Amino acid sequence: MKRGFYVGRFQPYHNGHQAVLSELARTCDEIILGVGSAQLSHTLENPFTAGERVLMITRALTDLRCPYYVIPIEDVQRNALWAAHVRSMTPPFDTCYSSNPLVVRLFFEAGVDVQSPAMYERDRHSGTEIRRRMLAGEPWENLVPPAVVTVVREIDGVERLREIARAD
Amino acid sequence: MKRGFYVGRFQPYHNGHQAVLSELARTCDEIILGVGSAQLSHTLENPFTAGERVLMITRALTDLRCPYYVIPIEDVQRNALWAAHVRSMTPPFDTCYSSNPLVVRLFFEAGVDVQSPAMYERDRHSGTEIRRRMLAGEPWENLVPPAVVTVVREIDGVERLREIARAD
Amino acid sequence: MKRGFYVGRFQPYHNGHQAVLSELARTCDEIILGVGSAQLSHTLENPFTAGERVLMITRALTDLRCPYYVIPIEDVQRNALWAAHVRSMTPPFDTCYSSNPLVVRLFFEAGVDVQSPAMYERDRHSGTEIRRRMLAGEPWENLVPPAVVTVVREIDGVERLREIARAD
Amino acid sequence: MKRGFYVGRFQPYHNGHQAVLSELARTCDEIILGVGSAQLSHTLENPFTAGERVLMITRALTDLRCPYYVIPIEDVQRNALWAAHVRSMTPPFDTCYSSNPLVVRLFFEAGVDVQSPAMYERDRHSGTEIRRRMLAGEPWENLVPPAVVTVVREIDGVERLREIARAD
Amino acid sequence: MKRGFYVGRFQPYHNGHQAVLSELARTCDEIILGVGSAQLSHTLENPFTAGERVLMITRALTDLRCPYYVIPIEDVQRNALWAAHVRSMTPPFDTCYSSNPLVVRLFFEAGVDVQSPAMYERDRHSGTEIRRRMLAGEPWENLVPPAVVTVVREIDGVERLREIARAD
Amino acid sequence: MKRGFYVGRFQPYHNGHQAVLSELARTCDEIILGVGSAQLSHTLENPFTAGERVLMITRALTDLRCPYYVIPIEDVQRNALWAAHVRSMTPPFDTCYSSNPLVVRLFFEAGVDVQSPAMYERDRHSGTEIRRRMLAGEPWENLVPPAVVTVVREIDGVERLREIARAD
Repeated sequence: MKRGFYVGRFQPYHNGHQAVLSELARTCDEIILGVGSAQLSHTLENPFTAGERVLMITRALTDLRCPYYVIPIEDVQRNALWAAHVRSMTPPFDTCYSSNPLVVRLFFEAGVDVQSPAMYERDRHSGTEIRRRMLAGEPWENLVPPAVVTVVREIDGVERLREIARAD
Repeated sequence: MKRGFYVGRFQPYHNGHQAVLSELARTCDEIILGVGSAQLSHTLENPFTAGERVLMITRALTDLRCPYYVIPIEDVQRNALWAAHVRSMTPPFDTCYSSNPLVVRLFFEAGVDVQSPAMYERDRHSGTEIRRRMLAGEPWENLVPPAVVTVVREIDGVERLREIARAD
Repeated sequence: MKRGFYVGRFQPYHNGHQAVLSELARTCDEIILGVGSAQLSHTLENPFTAGERVLMITRALTDLRCPYYVIPIEDVQRNALWAAHVRSMTPPFDTCYSSNPLVVRLFFEAGVDVQSPAMYERDRHSGTEIRRRMLAGEPWENLVPPAVVTVVREIDGVERLREIARAD
Repeated sequence: MKRGFYVGRFQPYHNGHQAVLSELARTCDEIILGVGSAQLSHTLENPFTAGERVLMITRALTDLRCPYYVIPIEDVQRNALWAAHVRSMTPPFDTCYSSNPLVVRLFFEAGVDVQSPAMYERDRHSGTEIRRRMLAGEPWENLVPPAVVTVVREIDGVERLREIARAD
Repeated sequence: MKRGFYVGRFQPYHNGHQAVLSELARTCDEIILGVGSAQLSHTLENPFTAGERVLMITRALTDLRCPYYVIPIEDVQRNALWAAHVRSMTPPFDTCYSSNPLVVRLFFEAGVDVQSPAMYERDRHSGTEIRRRMLAGEPWENLVPPAVVTVVREIDGVERLREIARAD
Repeated sequence: MKRGFYVGRFQPYHNGHQAVLSELARTCDEIILGVGSAQLSHTLENPFTAGERVLMITRALTDLRCPYYVIPIEDVQRNALWAAHVRSMTPPFDTCYSSNPLVVRLFFEAGVDVQSPAMYERDRHSGTEIRRRMLAGEPWENLVPPAVVTVVREIDGVERLREIARAD
């Protein structure tokens, strides 16, 4: 059985993440999603709590054919320990899928198999763009799965982000 | 929709936990399992990592009729913040189910509905007894779901516990 | 009895803070002053220790008609826990007075009454301006209560700030 | 002007503490009360939050002739830094008054004047005895100032302690 | 070139440690000594600071034929990260030498070669016995290298331990 | 006997540091090198682990005439405690040598003798320049001792830095 690990901050979970997961579901028997920087919320870069992000992901993945785990992972503030930290918080996995060069490097140095094909690039930068649109009052709903729109509304997420922005 | 929260250290996950969850599955629409003291492992009281505990639970619950979340929750070392910490790491929930008096008190003071019927008592102390049997070479396998026996074997869990015990 | 909570970093305590407190003294029976980011000192943004800030505030408030508490509050590095953290460190209060949008949002989500009238705006940005003047050798003494000038002199505060500035 | 520092956990504040403070008020111009282990609460040894302890102290000291500060002090978990930590959180002081040998030693090694006359012994162990009586349903009210009885009732303190005790 | 790692708390450094190091000097080209629980001091179990322990070791090893490193290692409070933590703080090493079963297990699970011959047992428990003798006023000097006696005297170590003991 | 303390992040150790140490070796009997921000690695500003930095320094100093200690020092995130933290991790020293104004100020306020002659300026900014050259593929080897070139190659340091740079 092949278990794959995929990590992101998911601020918010969006279509780029969804596309990657659909792809991973074809090559893995089980997928672990790590929700990074789990302890952060209510900032411009990290508006949503780990629990809210778990909810977004779970609701958006109801049709995924592949069993998966959603695991909040708090930062340890020491890059040299991060790979060991991730492994202590998750079931054992064979391969890490990531396009983040720091993640790639840290798992590589820890002796973990990492795959970083161009495909995974599609999830980069979209989170930043979605948060920018939320702040600017521009349409962002088409960049995320419908279930995420629902969760953001339930938690009053856009208004939260705008209030926080006024604090800077 | 009613979402319930149930927390334990699950060192290891055992039949008492399983019975509580079967009961909760009848009254809740969704269940959140909080894996407490997630950062601890390789001690006499907490031999298994959070990831190993997530694996035990997930494999043992394959037949549960009710959707559920398994969320590792690290300690914050300050009781007055614990309820807020739990809520930041989990999807919103309506009721906390627990027989641990400290958990009951902390959620009560945080204004969360807590239910603590005698039924939930059955999960107490068993973890201690199972770890004692593992150390003593006595049979423990009948106290946990079969899937947990498999996980403990895969991770060489009994031998780990015995080695740690020699460190005291 | 009505107890109000007012929080700032007070780097340093200045006339804007003093004006807010005079106003609060008219509507509250007791006031709690939270000295935020209490663990920080000796930086450009946070030159003074919590103890030095407590001293500034206490000396400047000798004529306040209203009983008050001055409570250092260390950061918890997790916004979702901040409101619970503040409440664990202070006597119970009814209303938080703040013009900081993040503070307003965090207490709002925690179910605490928050008031944020334009009046409280007057305390914003002055700290930055005072520190800029201290560094530039421009007059800053008229922006703070006389007692604060005395404390800053006693602790050699302007020279400390200038030395730190050379480290960047 | 002579400023004295007196530290305790004040779980709860009691007549022994009160007697020491009456004595200190005669020899100091100002007193700083450090509320130690400020981050702890809801445990058998530390049932009350820092804020609740601040409230007990302040209400019990309304008649003290001497100006005083009440400062919550979180643990830093490293004895070698504790004296520096205390000094960063408090206004400058000349003398530390304590009968706790560890406190005495740490300030002594940090070059701070420490006084530890037999008189201060009277505050030792009483906290333990009061908590034992609360748990046992025996009278404890005569061991604390009347204002502390009121605060403990307001916060439902005895019931909290008893619930916590059942968790062990 | 073969580099070996040897870890202890060295409270204090004693003849058992010295014997192990003499042995290791014959089989290794370089030795790394990890000074564990580096952040602890001024407790009954850990009376000496990391710096004091570094001094003891360095002075006692002046005649060691083998180049060595003495590295203070703070606890990370998570066993699953400890091996990665140690490796981030030290030059790369081939083998860990230890008779502590937890250390042996953690390095074993991290894929590090560990050797634990009976010989290394001789360093166990002596620290406890030396501290007991210091407290009881019994002779302890013959259990440590002469250089350690000198350091303990310079830092007034026995008196520190006795004062701390009165705090319990 | 005179013991001097010299602190840096040594990212990487370079000729400026080496020149300072040669100078210090003439005026001190023993030198303590503090490896600052020891917990950081794998970032643009701090690419190397503490252990790798210890290795660079030790290999580059094989000819130093003066006994020395190399001590990793983790950040404590509170400037007011930093001087006490350093002293707890190192053997006692008489003088701190530094051209970093914050270091100078913190030791000055802690009552430690600090020397900061122009000579020590030579170590400033070179680390930044070396890391820039590594990233740009420009020659950097002439700015560091030959032993450091060897270590950086052994640990694949330039490639690590370049990978990390792509993460921003």
